[in-house]
Amino acid sequence: APQYPQYTREEVGRHRSPAERVWVTHGTEVFDVTDFVELHPGGADKLLLAAGGALEPFWALYAVHNQPHVLELLREYKVGELSPAEAPPPPAATQDPFAGDPPRHPGLRVNSQKPFNAEPPAELLTESFLTPNELFFTRNHLPVPAVEPGSYRLRVEGPGGRGLSLSLSELRSRFPKHEVTATLQCAGNRRTEMSLVRPVKGLAWDIGAIGTARWGGARLRDVLLHAGFEERREGEWHVCFEGLDVDAGGAPYGASIPYGRAVSPLADVLLAYEMNGQELPRDHGFPLRVVVPGVVGARSVKWLRRVAVSPTESPSHWQQNDYKGFSPCVDWDTVDYRTAPAIQELPVQSAITHPRPGAAVPADELTVKGYAWSGGGREVVRVDVSLDGGRTWQVARLTGERPVPGRAWAWALWELQVPVPAGAAELEIVCKAVDGSYNVQPDTVAPIWNLRGVLSNAWHRVRVTVSR
Amino acid sequence: APQYPQYTREEVGRHRSPAERVWVTHGTEVFDVTDFVELHPGGADKLLLAAGGALEPFWALYAVHNQPHVLELLREYKVGELSPAEAPPPPAATQDPFAGDPPRHPGLRVNSQKPFNAEPPAELLTESFLTPNELFFTRNHLPVPAVEPGSYRLRVEGPGGRGLSLSLSELRSRFPKHEVTATLQCAGNRRTEMSLVRPVKGLAWDIGAIGTARWGGARLRDVLLHAGFEERREGEWHVCFEGLDVDAGGAPYGASIPYGRAVSPLADVLLAYEMNGQELPRDHGFPLRVVVPGVVGARSVKWLRRVAVSPTESPSHWQQNDYKGFSPCVDWDTVDYRTAPAIQELPVQSAITHPRPGAAVPADELTVKGYAWSGGGREVVRVDVSLDGGRTWQVARLTGERPVPGRAWAWALWELQVPVPAGAAELEIVCKAVDGSYNVQPDTVAPIWNLRGVLSNAWHRVRVTVSR
Repeated sequence: APQYPQYTREEVGRHRSPAERVWVTHGTEVFDVTDFVELHPGGADKLLLAAGGALEPFWALYAVHNQPHVLELLREYKVGELSPAEAPPPPAATQDPFAGDPPRHPGLRVNSQKPFNAEPPAELLTESFLTPNELFFTRNHLPVPAVEPGSYRLRVEGPGGRGLSLSLSELRSRFPKHEVTATLQCAGNRRTEMSLVRPVKGLAWDIGAIGTARWGGARLRDVLLHAGFEERREGEWHVCFEGLDVDAGGAPYGASIPYGRAVSPLADVLLAYEMNGQELPRDHGFPLRVVVPGVVGARSVKWLRRVAVSPTESPSHWQQNDYKGFSPCVDWDTVDYRTAPAIQELPVQSAITHPRPGAAVPADELTVKGYAWSGGGREVVRVDVSLDGGRTWQVARLTGERPVPGRAWAWALWELQVPVPAGAAELEIVCKAVDGSYNVQPDTVAPIWNLRGVLSNAWHRVRVTVSR
Repeated sequence: APQYPQYTREEVGRHRSPAERVWVTHGTEVFDVTDFVELHPGGADKLLLAAGGALEPFWALYAVHNQPHVLELLREYKVGELSPAEAPPPPAATQDPFAGDPPRHPGLRVNSQKPFNAEPPAELLTESFLTPNELFFTRNHLPVPAVEPGSYRLRVEGPGGRGLSLSLSELRSRFPKHEVTATLQCAGNRRTEMSLVRPVKGLAWDIGAIGTARWGGARLRDVLLHAGFEERREGEWHVCFEGLDVDAGGAPYGASIPYGRAVSPLADVLLAYEMNGQELPRDHGFPLRVVVPGVVGARSVKWLRRVAVSPTESPSHWQQNDYKGFSPCVDWDTVDYRTAPAIQELPVQSAITHPRPGAAVPADELTVKGYAWSGGGREVVRVDVSLDGGRTWQVARLTGERPVPGRAWAWALWELQVPVPAGAAELEIVCKAVDGSYNVQPDTVAPIWNLRGVLSNAWHRVRVTVSR
């Protein structure tokens, strides 16, 4: 066998275009596929999304690659091996608190490197019902903690329960494993559209701060009942979560949800240790995170260290002074965070993933694709699509499993094949979804504008040109 | 004591304007208040709302009348007594199936006499948090049944339970009385605005097909558990309701709700025999009706005769082929009722009750008033008001009790005192509400237009002129 040179992932990551050569990895092997780009049956564009990184998450989306001849063909382009130093966990943190962050897939669109915040390219979002872990949007508020699973403990406490300290193996063995397919969405998803109205404070998320995974873990309900807490409590109680991710002053990320949701057998709140059948990735909360289906991602605390029942909401900055919605008339001089409730359930949402803004579409027939989702387990019952800016509408076809009404935690994907109106030179494609409570999306962004740029769920509009 | 002539309610009802004289009743007394109309401290307009009918529901709204001198003053205008024949129940039905319908308050705006469908004047809606029974919107699909309370029985049945037949006294004595303040809204509320886009089929409701009452009765949950049904059922089950109101072919009004809602201790579904502390009025379901908080009024079946647990939704026309929402692109040639879910929870809603469209408002300061509500127990967290058609907004003040989050069954009333922009000759006043899941109302009506004119919850717009 030939001896190949060894490369680091960072070196591979420098080869992301034909000009700098296109490199990819598969397993521990490195390939220069520059000469194959134009031959790729799925299109050069799709292959270039993987440039500089691993093929596996893309091949997970496109099952056609799972054939022996594909790997054979790939081997013709082999140019190296990944350095063995790439396999073990990253080195301990140095001066830079983010130095211990894990490696990421180079296909992600990075909104912020430190802390790491990134989303997948929009057109990949709807290629599969479950979002591959490597492409799932990452929303970190702080450096990723390095957790030694053997010594990890989860504390559970609060008035009315006995304190617990649970190891990972206790969490796995004492409580039945429960699996839930749930979509998580960041409150700031689609913030870029809100910024076009007036500037807002926040990361510039496009439409990809949303993803769907099959989560596996212990039910929070089971753990709380095991700790002696009651099924129902009079008055308003909350369950507070703290992460192992801490700021420079030692304060952890934190959030809370209402007690009733935490203990409800119908709310499916998880303490998850698995994501799509794999161990939870470091960026998504290894070794344990909360998953609160139907609720803004900010409450699904990662790297969970503490669960506390409390008569008040989490005192965390992110519960008290962030992740709230305000009127468009409220600015940074007048905002009073006490006047708005913490976001829990999110409103109905949808977006177009194909075609992309500015694309040239065929003159005969067009396929429009996208996602739709609503908070609180409210199923998506309809998606309307317009090619003329919202004057006329057609009903899209929903794909994927039919959800349990009231427990529709996962998004609906949808598509519509539609003739392009004769003579049209441009189209303004619009989508809007309807949920099980018949809530709809607002027509325009300006009236829901808010200073933090959250809750951006107006109709999604994509302008394209028609090829002639 | 002088002998007064006797009049029927119908005769009193003919006197509704100064031209035909203005008569009102209080208790069994009849008064001609024509000469007092212009002297009325609350304004001639307000007094004329009561013309031809009883004063009590209006006095219930305006507590200032509860003083001895008011009644003394009224006595000066006495012209007669109500005929003693007015007291007993109406005569048995003749050929006209609606001949047995009860008398109604003449202040109601009648959309249909047979079956009777009527709403209160919009400006009265927000005068009190609880809507007086006589002014509560009435939505009848069929003639009002005449029920003899002594022989009335409620049947409860279905697989998994033992059949019950309950008398009214058993319902009152065997089950704890539970009281819930809940808003009921017709799916067709605000249909007139939708009709302006394109014609729709349905009664021409303005903004008054909504009202709030304190309901008292047995919990449906308690009755179902007493009949042996379980707290939870695997799979999709439903609880079907049938009324004593039947069509010419003998088919009853019917509807159903999901089993989970029916048995949930948090959903507060009632079998109500009281409305605002009084026996249920005939138009509102005497002697027993369902009240499903947070859900479209159509499921709160009146004159209840049967509760049946079933693996399928109610087969009733009103569950299967009405009370569903469709895309604006669906017309009567293409509609397929199987493709849309039956409306249960309603979307977030709000409307302006003061000022009224076309009013002349003062040039200095304006008070805007209205109601806001959302389905599913989602509390109203904010109402934004605009005076310029939606370009700029201000936050209204919510009045009334703070609800329990997630069980906010009653509306919020709101008001905003606001300076009138200098130089404005006309204003387009707009309101929009936000609920606890941060759902909002859509900007415009056309994109939510549907052939039945239901779910009309776009921003409410009222144009007024400014007095100079």
